[in-house]
Amino acid sequence: MNDTSAFIIKLAVDSWHLTVQRFNTLLESLNDETLLREIAPDRNRGIYLLGHLAAVHDRMLTLLNFSERMYPHLDEPFLDKADDKTADYPGIAELKSQWHEVNKALSSHFNQLSTDEWLQKHSAVSTEDFAKEPHRNRLNVLHSRTNHLSYHYGQLRLLKSSDNG
Amino acid sequence: MNDTSAFIIKLAVDSWHLTVQRFNTLLESLNDETLLREIAPDRNRGIYLLGHLAAVHDRMLTLLNFSERMYPHLDEPFLDKADDKTADYPGIAELKSQWHEVNKALSSHFNQLSTDEWLQKHSAVSTEDFAKEPHRNRLNVLHSRTNHLSYHYGQLRLLKSSDNG
Repeated sequence: MNDTSAFIIKLAVDSWHLTVQRFNTLLESLNDETLLREIAPDRNRGIYLLGHLAAVHDRMLTLLNFSERMYPHLDEPFLDKADDKTADYPGIAELKSQWHEVNKALSSHFNQLSTDEWLQKHSAVSTEDFAKEPHRNRLNVLHSRTNHLSYHYGQLRLLKSSDNG
Repeated sequence: MNDTSAFIIKLAVDSWHLTVQRFNTLLESLNDETLLREIAPDRNRGIYLLGHLAAVHDRMLTLLNFSERMYPHLDEPFLDKADDKTADYPGIAELKSQWHEVNKALSSHFNQLSTDEWLQKHSAVSTEDFAKEPHRNRLNVLHSRTNHLSYHYGQLRLLKSSDNG
């Protein structure tokens, strides 16, 4: 463990934060009416992607052994089920607030982790498996979730009318 | 520089390869007719995203100081211009082949880099600026391009009819 390792990890954490920031800039440019639209015919609506991402990021709190979940009730509508266009979803303002709160909590934990701690196992792998597969660590979850966010960011971008995203 | 740094960098390189693999699995599941469709009304077609990604990855060869470009002619139709639905684009088989070739070349370079070399500056930053901003290195480009690929992967996924992407 040395400064080089910490510097390299910071590049990944910065990439996470940049992706969250870009997503938030896009989110703020879309009004509630637009977020209730489908990203493409018969596909997920903006509100579903927002709730889905809030749920997935909330699950990171336990997956990374940081804390209890903040909003476990998001799983049922936004992870277990597909976008139900007749369902009574939480309001967009509420979902946005939860999205921002969970990312704030994650960032606060990220900023406190040492290199050793980043390389510790996540909660979905057993100690035995982790001994054989040491890449199943917190940092790997960070990479995976950054890509997951970029994936849905590319989709949400389709709701913006002024560019060809 | 030590084994820990190399291990941490490998997580990022593995994340790149996983994203390319997933994209390729999706690509192979879409026939040429489907790739000529728009991902959403009035948006880019699959063929354009494929050419765009091939051009962006080809540019990484020079950006990362690996080699000359392999397919610089892709820039004009797929980077400089928006999707022109009346243009005479290269065939999909040719674009797929170029996409695979450029990724093969990149992988070959990635696998040979030491930790020191990953942290060297990329070609779009001056030596003076790099001294002040050491994060503008090859590894940072890797993070950025992995996210870029995930962004368009999420969009291309919309061409698949059997799921809700």
